[in-house]
Amino acid sequence: MKPEEKIIDYKSILDNIYSSISQEENKGAIATYIPELAKIESANFGVCLLTRKNEEFGVGNWQVKFSIQSISKVLSLSLAYQIFGDKIWERVDVEPSGTPFNSLVQLESDHGIPRNPFMNSGAMVICDMLVSYYKNPKEDFLSAIRELCHSSEINYSETVAKSEASVGYRNKALCNFIKSFGNIENEPEEVLDFYFHICSIEMSCQELSRVFMFLANPNFTTTKGTKVLSLSQTKRVNAIMQTCGFYDESGEFSFRVGLPGKSGVGGGIVAIYPEKYCITAWSPKLNEKGNSYRGMKFLEEFTTKTEQSIF
Amino acid sequence: MKPEEKIIDYKSILDNIYSSISQEENKGAIATYIPELAKIESANFGVCLLTRKNEEFGVGNWQVKFSIQSISKVLSLSLAYQIFGDKIWERVDVEPSGTPFNSLVQLESDHGIPRNPFMNSGAMVICDMLVSYYKNPKEDFLSAIRELCHSSEINYSETVAKSEASVGYRNKALCNFIKSFGNIENEPEEVLDFYFHICSIEMSCQELSRVFMFLANPNFTTTKGTKVLSLSQTKRVNAIMQTCGFYDESGEFSFRVGLPGKSGVGGGIVAIYPEKYCITAWSPKLNEKGNSYRGMKFLEEFTTKTEQSIF
Amino acid sequence: MKPEEKIIDYKSILDNIYSSISQEENKGAIATYIPELAKIESANFGVCLLTRKNEEFGVGNWQVKFSIQSISKVLSLSLAYQIFGDKIWERVDVEPSGTPFNSLVQLESDHGIPRNPFMNSGAMVICDMLVSYYKNPKEDFLSAIRELCHSSEINYSETVAKSEASVGYRNKALCNFIKSFGNIENEPEEVLDFYFHICSIEMSCQELSRVFMFLANPNFTTTKGTKVLSLSQTKRVNAIMQTCGFYDESGEFSFRVGLPGKSGVGGGIVAIYPEKYCITAWSPKLNEKGNSYRGMKFLEEFTTKTEQSIF
Amino acid sequence: MKPEEKIIDYKSILDNIYSSISQEENKGAIATYIPELAKIESANFGVCLLTRKNEEFGVGNWQVKFSIQSISKVLSLSLAYQIFGDKIWERVDVEPSGTPFNSLVQLESDHGIPRNPFMNSGAMVICDMLVSYYKNPKEDFLSAIRELCHSSEINYSETVAKSEASVGYRNKALCNFIKSFGNIENEPEEVLDFYFHICSIEMSCQELSRVFMFLANPNFTTTKGTKVLSLSQTKRVNAIMQTCGFYDESGEFSFRVGLPGKSGVGGGIVAIYPEKYCITAWSPKLNEKGNSYRGMKFLEEFTTKTEQSIF
Repeated sequence: MKPEEKIIDYKSILDNIYSSISQEENKGAIATYIPELAKIESANFGVCLLTRKNEEFGVGNWQVKFSIQSISKVLSLSLAYQIFGDKIWERVDVEPSGTPFNSLVQLESDHGIPRNPFMNSGAMVICDMLVSYYKNPKEDFLSAIRELCHSSEINYSETVAKSEASVGYRNKALCNFIKSFGNIENEPEEVLDFYFHICSIEMSCQELSRVFMFLANPNFTTTKGTKVLSLSQTKRVNAIMQTCGFYDESGEFSFRVGLPGKSGVGGGIVAIYPEKYCITAWSPKLNEKGNSYRGMKFLEEFTTKTEQSIF
Repeated sequence: MKPEEKIIDYKSILDNIYSSISQEENKGAIATYIPELAKIESANFGVCLLTRKNEEFGVGNWQVKFSIQSISKVLSLSLAYQIFGDKIWERVDVEPSGTPFNSLVQLESDHGIPRNPFMNSGAMVICDMLVSYYKNPKEDFLSAIRELCHSSEINYSETVAKSEASVGYRNKALCNFIKSFGNIENEPEEVLDFYFHICSIEMSCQELSRVFMFLANPNFTTTKGTKVLSLSQTKRVNAIMQTCGFYDESGEFSFRVGLPGKSGVGGGIVAIYPEKYCITAWSPKLNEKGNSYRGMKFLEEFTTKTEQSIF
Repeated sequence: MKPEEKIIDYKSILDNIYSSISQEENKGAIATYIPELAKIESANFGVCLLTRKNEEFGVGNWQVKFSIQSISKVLSLSLAYQIFGDKIWERVDVEPSGTPFNSLVQLESDHGIPRNPFMNSGAMVICDMLVSYYKNPKEDFLSAIRELCHSSEINYSETVAKSEASVGYRNKALCNFIKSFGNIENEPEEVLDFYFHICSIEMSCQELSRVFMFLANPNFTTTKGTKVLSLSQTKRVNAIMQTCGFYDESGEFSFRVGLPGKSGVGGGIVAIYPEKYCITAWSPKLNEKGNSYRGMKFLEEFTTKTEQSIF
Repeated sequence: MKPEEKIIDYKSILDNIYSSISQEENKGAIATYIPELAKIESANFGVCLLTRKNEEFGVGNWQVKFSIQSISKVLSLSLAYQIFGDKIWERVDVEPSGTPFNSLVQLESDHGIPRNPFMNSGAMVICDMLVSYYKNPKEDFLSAIRELCHSSEINYSETVAKSEASVGYRNKALCNFIKSFGNIENEPEEVLDFYFHICSIEMSCQELSRVFMFLANPNFTTTKGTKVLSLSQTKRVNAIMQTCGFYDESGEFSFRVGLPGKSGVGGGIVAIYPEKYCITAWSPKLNEKGNSYRGMKFLEEFTTKTEQSIF
């Protein structure tokens, strides 16, 4: 019998891992650079698995909303990819960076072309495209996400967006720097306002697994009945998550978990098993590289116990 | 029916792609920095597919030997992983570098710990481990490769090894630089001699597909009947190939081909579809990033036409 | 007889060099990145020498005002040094940078402490100090410069300041970047407004030689009868000009001219022979490093012909 | 009366500074990376001033020989300058580097052209020129130095040269790296052997002041009655010392001491007051930047008390 045909008792595996990790020390530290995020209760811990067959398994605080932060970069990339197709690759590359997520150094040698759409710089260029395209960027983007999620309960957190804007000097530096190379069309202030807003979107693990299902299920459609990306585009977004989804810990995640995924400093992680499932974990304490300590651990044990990884 | 169960006519797909690419312009340039390699006939073009069920499909110059160069880095990594287990990760990281394969810059900020085992620096550290372990490093390594390949016809090219040594000042710089950080145990001269030799190994596409089968088939055994790596180790080597196998074009390969793989400046590329097959392509002309122009193209079309990729 | 006692016919030397350089090709290119500066007539060429004994020699367009740009950085540094003393060195270093004037890279490794007060970053930190200190920064700074120059005819060019602000994304990036390290106290917008204004000051060669006399004549006093800097401070400002005054061509200027000096992208250069004279040259076409082509040439020939250099 | 005509009681100034510094804590640490150098007695402290009029003032251990190390780079530069003239600037630049003395990073972006002849890389390129020129490089160089010093008592320390060679992996890396760019003609082994030898030369403060007199006295001649450099060349060597003589503390030395100079990790410092004097200080404990702690302090107080600096 081939591994992919095994019947796996997802529920008990999820419960077991959850309970064992819950008993271990909760290492790492909550991100404090955005004042509003520093207020989150660090004990939060939830996981949601959604399979292609629409089986849904939740554990812990899987229905509590949190700030998805950089996970939103996959959503903005996917919508821009849908709108502009391969033209987006003229303005952003698909290579892992080997440097921290907010590095300015590489932009200098790369003449303003960000290494990939999941670095802050790359996400800003994607945001700039969407700002140019949408009539009402913030409203239109939110509508698109709600259609993806089949839910009208998705919102920005104005408090978090303001909080990040108030301290986001490095992101302001980044956006002005890219603009100086000519790779931002709009005024940096407008692009940054959009960027800070989409980072501030709040979702639960359940909602995230649903909204990301289009990368795991080739037959997924939005509330409007449309597909999001072509099969080839879907594979390419997954490939970029695999190589670039975890900042300068992308290799480590690939090495330990073996699935394409994306993390956010709010403590969320989404991972995709193409054509099989989407799994989302949330725990606010981050390791040194800025990825959820318990989230990484959970996913590593999950792919080990289920013996499922793309490799 | 699930995609993985489709019956695919590999032979005709291979033939079709081969014939169409053969008629296109053969772009790129042969690597000239190793004098001996510059002599290769650029029209060579071969592909070999070997499935888990041991079906073997060859096309073009698939039985002509060529210099495997950096592809050897996967073999040295795998043997060191087998011998030392996870201890190897204390001396080399698993992150994509974002810089060229022979970069010294990053080593400085990383205090002599190479980013991954497929950069020259990382491969040298792995070589240093093997030099410390083996009684007769060059002989013992060759024996191990022959056991993997089930063939005694695998040899070093002394001419190529000497040729590279005669011009390898940058590699000498790299090895001495790592030594200055204390991350090389043996004398640089000895490590470099071993390194230049394993790069000079000559194999055909057919032999490469056979020797790499241990990464595609969990049940693979050597001539001695032993396994090479555990299932978990196998997955991890594949994961590193996925994120780091193509120098600073790793993201692009992942994006376009969607399989873990490794290239060499001799024009060879090996790619793995875990639990399904190993495919090797060879064409000496390289693109700007140092990867085989036709090899990349062939593999991209192959995964597109077969609709098989890990994503 | 010692060289410093020789009687030198400055007038005929100045005339001779001026006439010979005027007949040579005027190489280089006018700075175009500030739209307003691109409009300057490139044929302008003037020089003014002012000795400690108050002998004044002018040639060519020595009384035509131009945008002093980065030359203003010596004035802001000197005023901040006068106000805050050696405390300024806690926030900016005195080392040559080895990188272009607007580099962000080095700031990252130096944690927001600019290498020297003549890089854009360093000048912004100095501006930030003055903005914190002055009640009406722009007005108060201008008053201080007028007192230095013994002239009320010194003004900002609002057109140039606005022009630079409209395209100054890289400077905005720099200022926000330093702010992100905590080394800017005020809001970047306010600091940048002040910075763009002091760069826009317009002076002639004659006025520049007068305003810089405090670095050549230890007995110099302002219109209020006060000294600007102590003898030791004066020497230190001269020393910083010597090592850092010409961006990444500082060594070349030191090598060829042998005097401390400072250039601006408006095409002006001021050089100091401590305790002897101040000399200012202006010609808008810049060499590849951003320094006045004819200005550099003039000063090199001047110190060669007079056999006067600090070395 | 002009400052340069003041009659200064050098002897009592030297004695006073020496005695006051001797009573302060001797901070810093002896260089330990060359095993042989680590054995030096840290209490050693000597100074020698030699004026243009041949007045010689010594204090402390001014006649004890020590390893001159990088101070030798000024001597090799001067001899190469004498032999090849301005052609040397095709292979090495004159800009301060802004990076540590043994940096490899900058060489990469500068394509193998070292920033200046006082970085290790630049000194190696100069050594390569001398190795190509001399029949017996080590013997011929030593003869030239003896002629400069008017003494046959100058020798290499074979022990120190061997000691440095045995641990000099970073220098081997540097030399091979430059060779890989084509900017070293000879085999790196031969260049390094020469380089390690000239660093190992042993001199006392007295001998160093004598050997460096050609940079302070335009009328200086060797034992053969020949001049070393032209007046213009002399000024240029002094200018390079001013901007590049103290690694990444060159600006600080210029700022505090105000004279061109050069330091070595053996704890020696030579400084030149052009046309006036040469002063040498020696104390083995180094500050964090690798320059003699007491040597820097002595020279700063000396130029402060004598009110003599080129600025």
